[in-house]
Amino acid sequence: MREHEIAARLREAGIELPAPPRPAGLYRPVICRGGMGFVSGQFPIRHGNCARTGRVGAEVSPEEGRECAALAAANVLAQIRAALGGWERFEGLCRLDGYVASAADFLNQPAILDGASEFFVRVLGPTLGAHARTAFHVPRLPLDAPVELAVTFFAH
Amino acid sequence: MREHEIAARLREAGIELPAPPRPAGLYRPVICRGGMGFVSGQFPIRHGNCARTGRVGAEVSPEEGRECAALAAANVLAQIRAALGGWERFEGLCRLDGYVASAADFLNQPAILDGASEFFVRVLGPTLGAHARTAFHVPRLPLDAPVELAVTFFAH
Amino acid sequence: MREHEIAARLREAGIELPAPPRPAGLYRPVICRGGMGFVSGQFPIRHGNCARTGRVGAEVSPEEGRECAALAAANVLAQIRAALGGWERFEGLCRLDGYVASAADFLNQPAILDGASEFFVRVLGPTLGAHARTAFHVPRLPLDAPVELAVTFFAH
Repeated sequence: MREHEIAARLREAGIELPAPPRPAGLYRPVICRGGMGFVSGQFPIRHGNCARTGRVGAEVSPEEGRECAALAAANVLAQIRAALGGWERFEGLCRLDGYVASAADFLNQPAILDGASEFFVRVLGPTLGAHARTAFHVPRLPLDAPVELAVTFFAH
Repeated sequence: MREHEIAARLREAGIELPAPPRPAGLYRPVICRGGMGFVSGQFPIRHGNCARTGRVGAEVSPEEGRECAALAAANVLAQIRAALGGWERFEGLCRLDGYVASAADFLNQPAILDGASEFFVRVLGPTLGAHARTAFHVPRLPLDAPVELAVTFFAH
Repeated sequence: MREHEIAARLREAGIELPAPPRPAGLYRPVICRGGMGFVSGQFPIRHGNCARTGRVGAEVSPEEGRECAALAAANVLAQIRAALGGWERFEGLCRLDGYVASAADFLNQPAILDGASEFFVRVLGPTLGAHARTAFHVPRLPLDAPVELAVTFFAH
């Protein structure tokens, strides 16, 4: 049911979720227990590499930053789907912490992260996709990525 | 009961909680489920604007930084009260992640965040107001705010 | 049972958990409720002082950074053990957010945090020690520490 709805939305939007990126160290991509799930930090990885590197407002434009946020969000959903073996056990997003590598004078991190929030709502719908959010301005990120997302969700 | 206690403490302290600030993007101010609640990042917003901008130890003094932390904490409580429709379902704070925009050589973020921790205990009392805390030194924050707070809480 | 296993692993590894460091402000070192626990940010504190200060890739070498991550991880376990009165109620790690104070061009934060992840798995074993992880590049940390760890765990 949930499976079909989300698959239909992905098809309509012409989105294919990527293979979930492998962890960059000695940890698990997702931990799920007691009704809650925790996705390790996700980057705008495509085919094993960061799609762009650098800071928004410097090497990366705001529009490219938004696309990076959407790509990282696609990786978040790929991790959740892989960890749960589909969407039937998924009960909705909870919280998104979004980190934007930014030039010192770039202060509109919320606009960049809307690229991720919009993606979540488009794929999951307004109920399962709803989430609380915290935005951060950071000077650099691991891999020199422009965006990193840490997401928690509900599942049974 | 809880409602009366907290209202009484607010009155005694001469504090009126502000209207909860609106989200800065495509997300919800609070997500609450399965006994836990998550408040989106709160800033020292007053009447729709950031009360101060800049970094503690540079444009903002430590004392002003403390006041900003208390003001952001007031917005956290305003969001929780609005999301729960009062305090009866509230079962206590859980965790505070506090981000302080800081001059490179300002390293006493815990003293700034005590402005928020103290506010929480003053309004909620020592039991409901107790929380774990993590302090961060960041070079900048969205809106050029000096302080951002990400809070989780317990509720039924 | 769990108590004995973890004690045996600590003995084998020649590790003695330190006394849990005291909070740096008006907060609790651990909050535990509803099956989950939250440890306040831990630093590489030894005998009350930060074992090293500065940024990885500048004043602190990557190898020293890894050791600092392991030391902060030891403090995390010391806090959990103190809060739970032993290991019987402990049901496993959940999530590690790792912050590495880094020179601008040092981008391999995952390698530093593996010092903590490895420590957790060595002491707790592969099941209780498994965790999701998010890595951050920050320019500075409170106390001028090279590493800060924010950990959540499961407990009954």
